[in-house]
Amino acid sequence: MKRVMLTVAYDGTAYHGWQIQPNGETIEGILNRCLSETLGEKIEVIGASRTDSGVHAMGNIAVFDTDSPIPADKISYALNQRLPEDIKIQKSEEVASDFHPRHCESRKTYEYRIYCAPFPMPVKRLYAHYTYIPMDVERMRRGASYLVGKHDFKSFCSAEAQVETTVRQVDSVEVVQEGQEIVIRVAGRGFLYNMVRIIAGTLMEVGRGHIAPEEVKTILEAKDRQEAGPTAPACGLTLVKYEFL
Amino acid sequence: MKRVMLTVAYDGTAYHGWQIQPNGETIEGILNRCLSETLGEKIEVIGASRTDSGVHAMGNIAVFDTDSPIPADKISYALNQRLPEDIKIQKSEEVASDFHPRHCESRKTYEYRIYCAPFPMPVKRLYAHYTYIPMDVERMRRGASYLVGKHDFKSFCSAEAQVETTVRQVDSVEVVQEGQEIVIRVAGRGFLYNMVRIIAGTLMEVGRGHIAPEEVKTILEAKDRQEAGPTAPACGLTLVKYEFL
Repeated sequence: MKRVMLTVAYDGTAYHGWQIQPNGETIEGILNRCLSETLGEKIEVIGASRTDSGVHAMGNIAVFDTDSPIPADKISYALNQRLPEDIKIQKSEEVASDFHPRHCESRKTYEYRIYCAPFPMPVKRLYAHYTYIPMDVERMRRGASYLVGKHDFKSFCSAEAQVETTVRQVDSVEVVQEGQEIVIRVAGRGFLYNMVRIIAGTLMEVGRGHIAPEEVKTILEAKDRQEAGPTAPACGLTLVKYEFL
Repeated sequence: MKRVMLTVAYDGTAYHGWQIQPNGETIEGILNRCLSETLGEKIEVIGASRTDSGVHAMGNIAVFDTDSPIPADKISYALNQRLPEDIKIQKSEEVASDFHPRHCESRKTYEYRIYCAPFPMPVKRLYAHYTYIPMDVERMRRGASYLVGKHDFKSFCSAEAQVETTVRQVDSVEVVQEGQEIVIRVAGRGFLYNMVRIIAGTLMEVGRGHIAPEEVKTILEAKDRQEAGPTAPACGLTLVKYEFL
């Protein structure tokens, strides 16, 4: 028996998110089915990040145990043969038998992309949120700076979420202009439910001049979801990278 | 009666190319239908570049004549309401009544994208050709340099094409590394059938070490399609920009 860690990339457009659902295809469901077929035993993965419907990933993490004689680093090749084009393993490797991706220190990097132009651009539509309302990137950067550090992010957490604590550490928030796209790149040690999309929605309001950059500090201190901006749409969000520390 | 020029962007994934076909949806077919519905008269556009099945565009050009009272620059808004998500007008403007996009001096810019990594990346798959075979970008640049200028590009033209002359002027060929993507950016005054995809296929062979950079000169001089590399797949190609000179 060995424990194998997969680095999983996917286009979330066609899926009902990571976690198995009674109705609709999910990344977890397809991984379990293709892994079970590939290895000839029933496999159930443990995912690191249960991304929402429509969210993309370049490097989500899943682990599972197997008795298969296939070397851990070769499972990626075998599995990719069975996986659809919109889900592909980037790496497979053996890890310690007690390794659990949600119970150890990690840093996640997300990118939220906004395509901002007078008209929508078809080749950008699946991986960036479109808006025609102009945004001031420099204002967004100033607003973003208040989010870095260890804070209570209760204002940036969807009300439904039930968690022990809403304190989280954000390592960095960059706001970069790439052609007509604005990229908000957030790295941190764990995130609350919808946290990056609420950060993106709030920074868009800052960029548009509806919220002052220094108000982001006030919003944090309010610990009230009503104070922050809207939850930005899922398609703009990509889980880029997982690092175990 | 006025003549209107449209700047048309599309994701070519779902279409059988630009030109109307007896079977299968085309960009031209959808534009004609949506324009006719929007303006209440039968419209048939003249396209500048009849891109192949699967090729994308950020700025192809189409012109048409209309008696509509809608101002030319407002037609983009009305038309985008009817167009599907994967075809969107970027600009509409009035042009001279004798303007024909294929009969006047223009510069087109194409990008050919190659995603080069050990495993395919789902969020890149629709707009970049995937290969796991590594490529030397510096070699590709040296090979590309021989293509710049006025040459007989017969070796870089699909055999089926019937044209008066195969002499064309290429203004620039850049090869740029963007993360895991290699972008071949070609600008020129008119291109032969499949020319950019054959250039891309040939430069990939140069990058892999199968063709020496200076052999690109020999391939040009041979005026023989057999001497050049394969036609690279359509999905990697995007018509980025049209300039009328």
